[in-house]
Amino acid sequence: MSAPGVSALLFDVDGTLLDSVYQHVLAWHEALQEEHIELSVWRIHRRVGMSGGLFVDALARETGASIDAARAERLRRRHAQGLLARLAEIRPLPGAIALLTHLHNLGMPFALATSGRRETADQTISLLHLPGGVPVVTRDDVVRAKPDPDLFLAAADRLGVPATGCFVVGDSVWDLLAAQRARALGVGLLSGGYGRDELERAGAYRVYSDPADLLAHLDEIGVRG
Amino acid sequence: MSAPGVSALLFDVDGTLLDSVYQHVLAWHEALQEEHIELSVWRIHRRVGMSGGLFVDALARETGASIDAARAERLRRRHAQGLLARLAEIRPLPGAIALLTHLHNLGMPFALATSGRRETADQTISLLHLPGGVPVVTRDDVVRAKPDPDLFLAAADRLGVPATGCFVVGDSVWDLLAAQRARALGVGLLSGGYGRDELERAGAYRVYSDPADLLAHLDEIGVRG
Repeated sequence: MSAPGVSALLFDVDGTLLDSVYQHVLAWHEALQEEHIELSVWRIHRRVGMSGGLFVDALARETGASIDAARAERLRRRHAQGLLARLAEIRPLPGAIALLTHLHNLGMPFALATSGRRETADQTISLLHLPGGVPVVTRDDVVRAKPDPDLFLAAADRLGVPATGCFVVGDSVWDLLAAQRARALGVGLLSGGYGRDELERAGAYRVYSDPADLLAHLDEIGVRG
Repeated sequence: MSAPGVSALLFDVDGTLLDSVYQHVLAWHEALQEEHIELSVWRIHRRVGMSGGLFVDALARETGASIDAARAERLRRRHAQGLLARLAEIRPLPGAIALLTHLHNLGMPFALATSGRRETADQTISLLHLPGGVPVVTRDDVVRAKPDPDLFLAAADRLGVPATGCFVVGDSVWDLLAAQRARALGVGLLSGGYGRDELERAGAYRVYSDPADLLAHLDEIGVRG
């Protein structure tokens, strides 16, 4: 009997394939300031990548601000505007396009799964020049975003593979916690600006610097060319 | 014989008293993009707070770019412009003003020591409403910035105390490494967006979230009111 292989890779987007986390963070900071909610930037950084609903709950808890549905919607819209205003600064991370091209050429299935909304994700993901047919699951496609496992489960489902055979690649603790809940193995990347120990303590099987570093070490997770 | 007391506190500024690290990071990113030097934002984040000269050396090493004196000066100037353009977003960190006021009322001497230049530091530090007579040492006052100990040694000297009796409070590994070289004890704050383990591994005697958290635990470092 041969060892079980890797069925597919499921990628987070911001901080994992795109160098966009800090722009997201400052867009949230700007949106909050416009609503006169003061929250330190590093605390926003630690919340980025989680579901918008949980983000707003965490905000309310940490700032004591009262955030009703209308205010949450205003924040979401201002964040989206602030992010799109910073679009020209955003780049693919080193090795991101090469990594996806390599997987495509190997015939290894992969999908993208982001807590972001379709309206912003479409514009940022176009920077990656994805090959045709790669599933992209966004916040609009599921009931609950990270750290719930729904985004990664939906992505595996779109590829027709069980999540238990997948590696989830992400830069935030929310990706890695969601990976555990999906019973997938998690690979952490430092390129979102979180510390190695934060990712390891959230259950990362392995941590690399960025997509280029993961590409150079794919054999460590059982992907062979 | 009584135990040796704490002579003074020496504070880093950006990420320690001011919520300005992410603005510095994106101002550097913008300056580099204008010079067609591509460097991931998280890598810039990990370099912020070190001396400009070492930052440029690290840049050259990590990007392979050739950076002569004229280009380094252009980068420095563009970063300063980018930072000043973001000045309206910058706030004191929670508890920063209350902490400094408390130390002032206790009669505990303190000084500020930043790797930044006087031209930007004057404008950002004014947000802290410092009591009169607090020494502020900048990059312009010393030959070598962090992680060399010169900034903290100069700050202790301005207070007329030996650095060995001081606590250095900072948010980056460069602060904590410089503290060790000055033979001072280092206190790390998470408010610059670095991970706890990064600060502990750089020698932090103790790590707090932000100035408000340090203020609530001053007795742990031997400052009693």
